[in-house]
Amino acid sequence: MNKANKMNVNRLLATLSHINQYGANQHGKGITRLAYTPLYEEALRDFIGLCEAEKMTVRVDAFGNMIARREGTNPKLPVVALGSHMDTVIQGGEYDGTLGVVAALEVIRSLNEEEIETIHPIELIVFACEESARFGASTLGSKAMTGLLDTYSVSNLRDKNGITIQQAFQDYSLDFQKIDKVIRKREEFKVFLELHIEQGPILEMQRKKIGIVTGIASPTRIEVRIQGKASHSGTTPMNDRQDALVAAAEIILEVEHAAKEESAFGTVGTVGVCMVQPGAMNVIPDSVHLQLEVRGTSEQSKNNVLDSLFRLFRELEERRGVVINPSVIIVERPVLLSKEVVNMLTDCSNTLDLSYIHMTSGAGHDAMSMGHLCPTGLIFIPCREGLSHHPDEYASAEDIEAGLQLLKEATLRFAISTT
Amino acid sequence: MNKANKMNVNRLLATLSHINQYGANQHGKGITRLAYTPLYEEALRDFIGLCEAEKMTVRVDAFGNMIARREGTNPKLPVVALGSHMDTVIQGGEYDGTLGVVAALEVIRSLNEEEIETIHPIELIVFACEESARFGASTLGSKAMTGLLDTYSVSNLRDKNGITIQQAFQDYSLDFQKIDKVIRKREEFKVFLELHIEQGPILEMQRKKIGIVTGIASPTRIEVRIQGKASHSGTTPMNDRQDALVAAAEIILEVEHAAKEESAFGTVGTVGVCMVQPGAMNVIPDSVHLQLEVRGTSEQSKNNVLDSLFRLFRELEERRGVVINPSVIIVERPVLLSKEVVNMLTDCSNTLDLSYIHMTSGAGHDAMSMGHLCPTGLIFIPCREGLSHHPDEYASAEDIEAGLQLLKEATLRFAISTT
Repeated sequence: MNKANKMNVNRLLATLSHINQYGANQHGKGITRLAYTPLYEEALRDFIGLCEAEKMTVRVDAFGNMIARREGTNPKLPVVALGSHMDTVIQGGEYDGTLGVVAALEVIRSLNEEEIETIHPIELIVFACEESARFGASTLGSKAMTGLLDTYSVSNLRDKNGITIQQAFQDYSLDFQKIDKVIRKREEFKVFLELHIEQGPILEMQRKKIGIVTGIASPTRIEVRIQGKASHSGTTPMNDRQDALVAAAEIILEVEHAAKEESAFGTVGTVGVCMVQPGAMNVIPDSVHLQLEVRGTSEQSKNNVLDSLFRLFRELEERRGVVINPSVIIVERPVLLSKEVVNMLTDCSNTLDLSYIHMTSGAGHDAMSMGHLCPTGLIFIPCREGLSHHPDEYASAEDIEAGLQLLKEATLRFAISTT
Repeated sequence: MNKANKMNVNRLLATLSHINQYGANQHGKGITRLAYTPLYEEALRDFIGLCEAEKMTVRVDAFGNMIARREGTNPKLPVVALGSHMDTVIQGGEYDGTLGVVAALEVIRSLNEEEIETIHPIELIVFACEESARFGASTLGSKAMTGLLDTYSVSNLRDKNGITIQQAFQDYSLDFQKIDKVIRKREEFKVFLELHIEQGPILEMQRKKIGIVTGIASPTRIEVRIQGKASHSGTTPMNDRQDALVAAAEIILEVEHAAKEESAFGTVGTVGVCMVQPGAMNVIPDSVHLQLEVRGTSEQSKNNVLDSLFRLFRELEERRGVVINPSVIIVERPVLLSKEVVNMLTDCSNTLDLSYIHMTSGAGHDAMSMGHLCPTGLIFIPCREGLSHHPDEYASAEDIEAGLQLLKEATLRFAISTT
C-alpha cells in the first residue's frame, strides 16, 4: 500500500464541520453561505488562519480569490494548484465546493506531517463566487483569474436585494476597478486539480469510488417566447385555435427527443421554466415563456439538438399560426480536460486500487475556467442519490477518503517531478 | 315583409349606451359592472324605470333577479319569458348580456307602440350574477330561480376583496336566508327566450346572421398534479429522469388530440393553466399543476376525451415514473334545448328571410339553467372576430336588428297562441 494511502479523513471531516458552522441553518436548514457576505468573509478568514498554521503564504486577490502557497524547492517553477470554492447556494449542502477546499488543505497537512518537500510550489486556491445563487452568474472568481470574465456584463449584476456586485465588493473591502489585475498566465501553472462531489447519480449507480472527468459540458440556454391568440375555451373550435401552450408542449417534448437522439454523446436537454398567460381555465393561452438549456461536451452534438429545435420553431409557426421568438441567454464552450492529466489520474487510481470510471461533468466547475488556461484535472466522488444543492447532500467518509488519496497521490507526482 | 320586421334598432342602441354609462371605464377601459355592486344596482334601478315606463309590473326577487311583467289577456296562462343579464366581467364589452336585456325591452316597446295584446303574459327577466367575475361562479341568479343552486357551496363564496356573497347581499338589501323562495315552477313558463352575442367566430366565418342554439356545452374541469423528481439539469442522464414537465407536455397534447378526434361532436378540450416548480433553468421540474377542461354537448363524446386522458395518466406513471393525481373541479351536465323551440325559431327565421345555422353554444348562459326548467330558446348573433369579455367586443346594428326581429317574431308567436 502506497504511503499516500494513509490519510487523516477524520481531521478533514472535523475541518469541514468547522467551516460549515458559518451559514449553518441560516435559512432554516442546510448551509447558506452566499458569496461576498459577512458570513462568507468570516469563514474565509478562519480558513486563511488554517492555511497560515500550515506555514503557507496567503493572499487574497482583487476578486476575493484566496491563494495560499506552499513553497517548492525551486520557487521559479510553475505551481501545482489545488482548489475549489467555499460559497454555497441558499439551503445548500456541506460538501459542494467546501469539500474540495478542505481536502486540498488536508493534502498540505499530510505533506507537512510527513515533511515532504516538493520541487514545484503548491497552491491552494479558494475561488470566489462559484455559485450563481447570489448574482445569477457562476464561477466568477475562476473566470476572473483566467481572463474569461466579461467585466462589462458582470459590473451590472445585482443580487435579489438590488445590491450591485460593485457595492458587494466595496462592502467586502475589494476594489472592483482592479479586477483586471487578477488575471494569471498560463506559465504560472503546471496543473490545476479539483476534487468535487459528482452532483449526479452515475458513480453511485455504477458503484465506483472515483470519476475521472474527461470533459465538462457547457450549457447553451435559450429563452423562447411563443405568441398565440387568446380566445374562449368553449366557443373556439379545435381547428381555429392559436394555442401557445400546445405549441410549447411540442417544444418541450422535442427538447427531450432530440437530446435522447444525442445521448451517445452525453448531451442533455431540459425545459426548466414554463410560464403561461393568461392562465385561466376558460381562456386559450396566448403567451408562453419557456427557458431551456442544452448541455454537452460535444459542440456538434449540442448543435444537432439546437438545430432540430429551430426547425421545429419554424414548422410550428407555419402549422399552428403562432409566433416564436427564441433568444440566446448564454452559450458556453464545452471544455475537454487535458489527456495527460486524465492519464495521470487513471494511473494513480490504478496504483491506489481505487475503482473509477472516466466520465463527463454535466455541471460547471471552477475547473472549467482553469481548463481554458492550463492542464486541469477534475476528480469526482459519489454523493448519495446524486443529490446536491440541498441540505441532505451527503458523501460518505469512505468515498471522501478515496478522493483524498487520489488528490494527494496526483499532487505529489506532479509536484516532485519536473516532467 | 312581416310587420315584426320594422324594428327601432336605433332606440335599442340608445338604451344600450344609456345602460352602459354605468361602469364605463371603471377599470381604465371597457365596461366593469360587477354583480351586486352599487354601480350594478344603479343600472338596474334605471332599467326598472324604463320597464315601468312601458307599464310593466316590476319585482326583484330575493336573489336580485328582476322580473318585469306585461300582462296577457289571460293572466293565468304560463308566461313567455325573455331575458339575459346585465352584470359584466372586469373590462368587459357592451353587448354580452346587456344586449339581450335591452332587446327584450325593445320587443315590449314595439308591442306597446303597435298596441298588440297577447294572450300569454310576457316577462322580462334580468338575471343576477351571470358572470363568474366577482364570485368565481357563474349563472347564479338563473340557477337560483330554477332550483339548481347548491346553497351551501354558494354561501361560502367570497370576492377578491374577501367580501362574502352573504355580505354582498346585505349591502344590496337582499336577504340571503330567503334565496330558497326564488325557485319557480315549470308550470309558470311557456317558454324562455334569450338573445346573446355568439362569443365565438362561427357565425362570422360562415357569414350567417343568426345562430339557433340546439344545445349548450357544459364543461368538465379537472385539476392534474404531476409529481416527478427534481434533479440537476446537467448531471442527470436523459434516461434517468422523472421530469414532471415533459409528462405534462404529453397530457397537453393529448387533450388537443383527443378533442380533435371528437370534433364531429363539437367537443373541445383546453389546458389553460400550467404551473411549474421549482421553475429554474438548471433544475428538472419536479411538480406541475395543470387545470384543463373538456366541453361538449354530448356526454359520451366528452367521456371519450376524459377516458383517453385517464388512460394516458396511468401509462405516464408507468413509463415516466411520475405520480399523477387528477381531481375533478366541476362536472356540469350539457343541456339540449327544446326541439319545439328550435323548430319555431327556424320557422321564424325562414319567414323573416334571415340567414341562420343550427349550432351549439360552447359558453354557458342563463338559458342553460332555464333549459333545465322549461322549453328554452337561445338566439346568437355574430360578434366581430368572435371577441367577447373584452372592451373591443362589437356587434353591428344590422346583426342586432336581425336578432331583434327574430326575438320579437318568436315572442309574438308563442304569446298569441295557446298551443
